[in-house]
Order: sequence, then structure tokens, then C-alpha cells
Amino acid sequence: MKILITGGAGFLGARLARTLLQRGTLGGRTIERIVLADQAQAPADLLKDERIEARVGPLLAHCEGLREEAIDGVFHLASAVSGECEADFDLGLRSNLDSTRALLDALRDRVNGGEAAARLVFSSSVAVFGPDAAVPMPAVVTDTTLPTPQTSYGIHKHICEHLVADYSRKGYIDGRSARLMTVTVRPGRPNGAASSFFSGIIREPLAGVESICPVGLDVAHPVSSPQRTVEGLIAIYEASREAYGGRTAMNLPALNVSVAQMLAALEEVAGPAVRARVRFERDERIAAIVANWPSAARADRAAKLGLLPEASFADIIRQYIADSAANPAALAGLPGR
Amino acid sequence: MKILITGGAGFLGARLARTLLQRGTLGGRTIERIVLADQAQAPADLLKDERIEARVGPLLAHCEGLREEAIDGVFHLASAVSGECEADFDLGLRSNLDSTRALLDALRDRVNGGEAAARLVFSSSVAVFGPDAAVPMPAVVTDTTLPTPQTSYGIHKHICEHLVADYSRKGYIDGRSARLMTVTVRPGRPNGAASSFFSGIIREPLAGVESICPVGLDVAHPVSSPQRTVEGLIAIYEASREAYGGRTAMNLPALNVSVAQMLAALEEVAGPAVRARVRFERDERIAAIVANWPSAARADRAAKLGLLPEASFADIIRQYIADSAANPAALAGLPGR
Repeated sequence: MKILITGGAGFLGARLARTLLQRGTLGGRTIERIVLADQAQAPADLLKDERIEARVGPLLAHCEGLREEAIDGVFHLASAVSGECEADFDLGLRSNLDSTRALLDALRDRVNGGEAAARLVFSSSVAVFGPDAAVPMPAVVTDTTLPTPQTSYGIHKHICEHLVADYSRKGYIDGRSARLMTVTVRPGRPNGAASSFFSGIIREPLAGVESICPVGLDVAHPVSSPQRTVEGLIAIYEASREAYGGRTAMNLPALNVSVAQMLAALEEVAGPAVRARVRFERDERIAAIVANWPSAARADRAAKLGLLPEASFADIIRQYIADSAANPAALAGLPGR
Repeated sequence: MKILITGGAGFLGARLARTLLQRGTLGGRTIERIVLADQAQAPADLLKDERIEARVGPLLAHCEGLREEAIDGVFHLASAVSGECEADFDLGLRSNLDSTRALLDALRDRVNGGEAAARLVFSSSVAVFGPDAAVPMPAVVTDTTLPTPQTSYGIHKHICEHLVADYSRKGYIDGRSARLMTVTVRPGRPNGAASSFFSGIIREPLAGVESICPVGLDVAHPVSSPQRTVEGLIAIYEASREAYGGRTAMNLPALNVSVAQMLAALEEVAGPAVRARVRFERDERIAAIVANWPSAARADRAAKLGLLPEASFADIIRQYIADSAANPAALAGLPGR
């Protein structure tokens, strides 16, 4: 089978590709090829595998060719992140809405030409949830909480969830939307996401570098490790239509933690000197975005698929340390090193 | 002030224009001009008023010019209806999504050029609600019910609600979304909407013509009269941002009635001979769409704005008869006459 991963050179996309290559199969079928479509070149270790085909360029440009190409499965991860969308409204519309429409329409074109519908997993986000004056946000967001997103990024993700649902209803794709929790600990440099500090306050101190936390200790948020997130995407791909249930987006499992708990876990795993490298300096722009995000999430549908959150944040930190030891290059891009 | 009504030559748009012309003001400002943008030519009575400017053509074509034009207020009613969207997926995307994006982007362009943001009322629909395997529909849908639309039309309306919310958050428009209940009794010919029979089973018998009801007597649905609907749109336009509350779409008032109750009201108002002109002949395509619509709605936010449903369906029928007497031309297009 042939798999397309949009955003396939990104942190999650590359990790997903590595996991799929290692498994060798998806949904019981042998993986012959994985196409990584991304604005950036794919990591070198992936390019060495002959099953990998990297395509560099904007997703919109990739989509035209897809009308002529037999793709069995898609993981649609490519996205402009929250900070980027707030800074550049047009970029957000183009990267998140127009590109997703173009991708879905290319897949629809294949079905209209008599081919079988591709299966597609869309990576939505917990950022679809937010408080509105007319709709206060519950203490814990669930699969059935009404999304009233308070960022363009959240709006785009939620709109795409509905496009995926409608294209699926019409049989143009077999689509599923999974709402990712904030993924931490991300390796490498901070990115444009307002949630970037949820990785930075762990990653930089472990690398001997000071990190600035732009929000207070009491800020709580649902998070997940990279590996659990990738496993969730694969499980949702492999689920039967019935097991997935309906066409509405579902939450991925969340570990609900506060910044204080994250730093306590950092101290537990790496000691007080490492924890002391985190400095608090409030950033009103980031704090305002984060204040509109949920402080906790539940994932009942994911649990029915056997997907569960990590037991503790210390486990997530240990996973990051083990990953970094196995692949030291992942730390190379850190600022100040 | 200058007002744009998209879909301004349609039944609701024309009625809204007549009401606005009669009032002479909107939000305390004198109405100097009302632009009716529509694929069809506006009714003759409207064209006689020198404040009316009719523009005929697809909305997408109208939007380019809007970048150069000072518009103070917009009622965005133009839409491909449910039956059309199910029959022609591309038409639905173009008419409902692409056109709304183009309209919003034209208004955004003005704000980026230093002009004040236009106020905009988007006519969404009760069709955003529907049952999904993962999210059963409640007996009564409210302002905070999770929309999981089961038609492309409902998907488009819900997506546009979110675009309106995000463009409003960014200050590109002062937007509000009102979910219209099924409007009945519509004059003229049946249209492509799956809900068309909710008017047909009253309108045709009153005109001496047989009407076919494609669903059973027990089908219940939230409806509203044309006049209450127009009044709702104007009230939501005139509401302060605070009174509207948040940026999430709100329901307009609904009278919840079954087909049986509608026909009982018809008999009450016009006698058993008229009621006997309704024949039942199940249409599986229509019945399947309608089965996924809510059977009742509540409109708490609208009630806070002083908007209430009609007291009875007989009142709605009497309103239609009075309207038709005042404007017999409205009946001229009836089939079989």
C-alpha cells in the first residue's frame, strides 16, 4: 500500500513515518511506499529507507498531482500553527483551509473516477475548544463538548473536521478526525505554536539551557507524549468505521497536568538544578491564547479503542530522555548550543 | 447608510428589503441605499424604490467589486439549499463556502485599508443539527447543542458560522450568526430545499391545488413565519455586541409543530375540503434528509433579545393568507395554475 503523510518531515510526521516503517504494515496491508509531503526536507534517516519518497513544497502544490495518483491512506498533519495563524491571517487560511480542501478534492476526484476511497486521518487539535461569552468552557472538555474556538488555528481545525465528516458521508474518503492534545516533549527548536513552552520548559533545562515560562505555575493543560500521539493516530486509522463511531471528531487521550506538576516531575527525574533553569517571565500574548485553552480533557471514545494516557508526566520526561539518547541529533538544533 | 443583502431577490431577502425600506432606518441610521445581490432579478415593487440597487449574478462575481465599496451593513442570506447541495457537491462548495469566504475577505480588505468594520448578519440554519452515531441528537436542540450536521448544506452553514466568528474576533467584521428555523409558509413555487413541503402542504391546498406530503403525520419540526424570521434578523443586527453575547451562532425562535398539527391548523383556518387536498406519498430521499433534522428547538438567547415564536401555527397560516391577499402576484407562480 501507499501512504501519504502531509507534514511528513515535521516532528510528528517523521515519528509516524519511522513507526510505520518499523511496523511494515498498516491495517493488515504491507507498506510499500510512504510519501512525505512537507515544506521542509525529510530527516536523513528516513530518506535512507527505499520505501520513503520525500516531496518538498507547499501542500497546495502537491495536491494537483494527487488526482493522478493511487493513494491508499493519508495522515493529514500539515498545518500552520496557532502563533503563525494569529500573526498572518492569510497564511492560516491558505495553509489550513485551502490546502485541506485541495487535498480532499484531489481524493474526491479519484473516487469520481471510479477508484476506491482513501482512508484519511486528520489531526485536529484540543485547540478547537475555548470559552465564548455565550458558551462557558466546562472544567473538562469531552468528545461531545461544543467547540467554540478562540484562535484562527482552532477555527481552521474545527472547520476541517466538518469537511472531513462531509466528504466521508458522501463516500469521497473514509475520514476520521483525531483531536491531538498538546504534544510534549518536542525535540529541537521552539516553533511558532503558542504551546511551544510546554516542551521548552522541559527540553531546554535538560539540555543545560535556561528556559522562560510565559505563564504561571497554576496553568493546567491536557498533554500527551509524541509516542502515544503517534500510536493514537495509527489506532484510529486501523479502527473499523463502527469502532470509530459516527463521523464526529474524537479526542485523543490526555494527561491533565499543571505547569507546577510538570516542573515537579522534571525535578523528580532530573534533579533540582535542572528544574531551577526555568525562569518565569509572563508573555501577555501567549498567556491570553493559553487562557482560552481547556485546562483538562477526557477521551471516552479513544478509551473504547484501548487508547489511554500516560500514567505520569515523569514517564513522558523519561521517554524524551530515552529518545534523545537514542538519537542525539534531535538535540542539535537547540538554541544556545 | 448602505446595506447589502445577498440573496436579496429571494423570498426572505426581498421581504427583508421591503421591511427595511418601510422602516427607513437600521440601528438608528437612515437607510440611503440597499444593494440586492442575487442570481435572479429583484421583484418589480422593490426596483421602483430609488433606494434599491439590484445586481444580478453569482455572489462570487459580486465580491470582487466590494473591495472598493463602502458597505455599512450586510445581511448574508444567499445560499444553495439542501437538495441542491446533495445533488451537486461542487455547486454547494462554491455557492456556500467559496462565496462566503470571498464576501468576508472583501470586507476584511476594507478594514485592512483603514475603513470601519461592516456589521454582518449571517443566516445560518437549524439544519446544522443532526444525529451522529457518536452524538445522539437531543429531543430539543438549543443554542449550545453540539452541531453534527448530516447534510452538506448543514456542514456549510456551520463552517460559515465559524468563519463569521473568527473574522469578528479579528475585527474584520462585526458578525453575528442567526440559525433560521424552517420558514413557512413560503409563497411561489416549491424550491430545491428538502424542507420545501413544509410550505407546500399549506400553500397549494389554499390555492386549490393538490399537494404531496413526502413524510408521515408524526414528523415534527421547528418552524417560523417569514415575518418573525425577518424581524429576528433585524433584531440581531441591531443588538449590541454585549446583548448578542459571544461570537457563537444563536437559534432564532421556533414554533415546534408536527405535520399533523400543521394540517389540523389548516383545517381550522380553511376548512376540511382544503385540508383534504394534501395527499401522502413517501419520498425516501426527502424523508431520509428530514429524519436527520431536529424535531424541536429552543432559542434562549433570542428570547433574551425579546424574540419569541408565534403563538400557534394557525397564526402563521393566517399571516400567509393576509400577505397573499395584499400581494396576489405572489401566488402567480404556483404549479398547476
